[in-house]
Amino acid sequence: MHNYKIKLSYDGGRYKGWQRLKTASLTVQGTLEEHLSSLFDEAIEINGSGRTDAGVHAYEQVASFSTKNYHSPEDVMKYMNHHLSSDLSILSVEESNPRFHARYNAKGKVYVYRIYNHKIMDPFRRKYCYHIMKSLDLKKMKEAASFLVGEKDFKSFTTMKSKKKSTVRQLEFIDFSHVDGELHITFKGNGFLHNMIRILVGTLIEVGLGKLSPHDIPEILDKKERQYAGETAPPHGLFLKKVLY
Amino acid sequence: MHNYKIKLSYDGGRYKGWQRLKTASLTVQGTLEEHLSSLFDEAIEINGSGRTDAGVHAYEQVASFSTKNYHSPEDVMKYMNHHLSSDLSILSVEESNPRFHARYNAKGKVYVYRIYNHKIMDPFRRKYCYHIMKSLDLKKMKEAASFLVGEKDFKSFTTMKSKKKSTVRQLEFIDFSHVDGELHITFKGNGFLHNMIRILVGTLIEVGLGKLSPHDIPEILDKKERQYAGETAPPHGLFLKKVLY
Repeated sequence: MHNYKIKLSYDGGRYKGWQRLKTASLTVQGTLEEHLSSLFDEAIEINGSGRTDAGVHAYEQVASFSTKNYHSPEDVMKYMNHHLSSDLSILSVEESNPRFHARYNAKGKVYVYRIYNHKIMDPFRRKYCYHIMKSLDLKKMKEAASFLVGEKDFKSFTTMKSKKKSTVRQLEFIDFSHVDGELHITFKGNGFLHNMIRILVGTLIEVGLGKLSPHDIPEILDKKERQYAGETAPPHGLFLKKVLY
Repeated sequence: MHNYKIKLSYDGGRYKGWQRLKTASLTVQGTLEEHLSSLFDEAIEINGSGRTDAGVHAYEQVASFSTKNYHSPEDVMKYMNHHLSSDLSILSVEESNPRFHARYNAKGKVYVYRIYNHKIMDPFRRKYCYHIMKSLDLKKMKEAASFLVGEKDFKSFTTMKSKKKSTVRQLEFIDFSHVDGELHITFKGNGFLHNMIRILVGTLIEVGLGKLSPHDIPEILDKKERQYAGETAPPHGLFLKKVLY
């Protein structure tokens, strides 16, 4: 058996998310498996570090897979980048420790959410930024974010259906930065629940617009019910930036 | 009569260029005229500073139009940005001198061509950069460009069909810069022939790849025949940046 670790980047716009579906929908996992299976001439199953939702992008996603047959990392990379469409690029391929598993071994993740806070939308950012026309109060958003950092139960900030699994996660930081006319909100944590970042962003935006106060945040956390948090921000502003091992 | 000057930005990816066509094709001019005619309740014809080809983008295009009916610039802007799709934004609207004409009064233009010169394509730049995998010799490209600046007959660098019109143009500068991992080639001139920049870029790239020598350029200019210049670079790397009045 050979075990491979790959890094890849994708524009999630065309994909119904990472996870392979039983229907004919286009997914990142399904696309990768199809090409890897052709190359290795065996059925390949690939494990991503986590699932990105439909429309969510990745600057750098990590995945692993095992094979019986062998191809050099250089050949895997060349074959894949030749065959994949240009919205999906393999950044690196390496043979890894046979016990490496992209999901089980992930220690944390960094996500960035890009907001374009201007009256007029820039056509070239429309697919990669959430456009907010009304002015955002950044100071209040930062204050709200301070209540979200640390080890918390994020049950109010997920659409996760299971009632058995823990909704406690460690959010190491929420950072705000201005990059090329955009507002970037960066999240680093040991793991994120389904839709958690998009609901956190939607809630922070409601604070920035004055619809919620920063001091509503502790109460929203306490309620442990989805309905008290803000709207789910759209997927096209969200980027998986880094997986930490 | 009222005369308006508008600035706009568009992602040319979906459009068959600026110029309205008789077929049902999507064009920038056609789209603008359709919405302006609805707003003003009269048939509006709009004059662009020039025609961009299918797939070419504009950071800032300028256009003018005259109307019998009146709407304030603020209302025109609000109506248009509300109705236009997000790949086309109106940046400003003003009432102008009745004799202002976006094309006749244009004194020059600045275009940028974006190249991504890396082995692996970045999925997020695929629609806005020409991807060149082999390394480009920038020094040779600059040397080649130096032969193209000034008042020259660019007949070898156009697919213009008319044999009567002058093909002499003044190229004020060709500038090379590195921006966020991309190579940008900026052209400023008093006017550009059909496909001229894309053929100039294609020729400069052939110099950068060693297929042509910088010293071939004067000869290509002298030949005054399209076949001697390089390939036409693809439209998706080209951006109209500024129209000068």
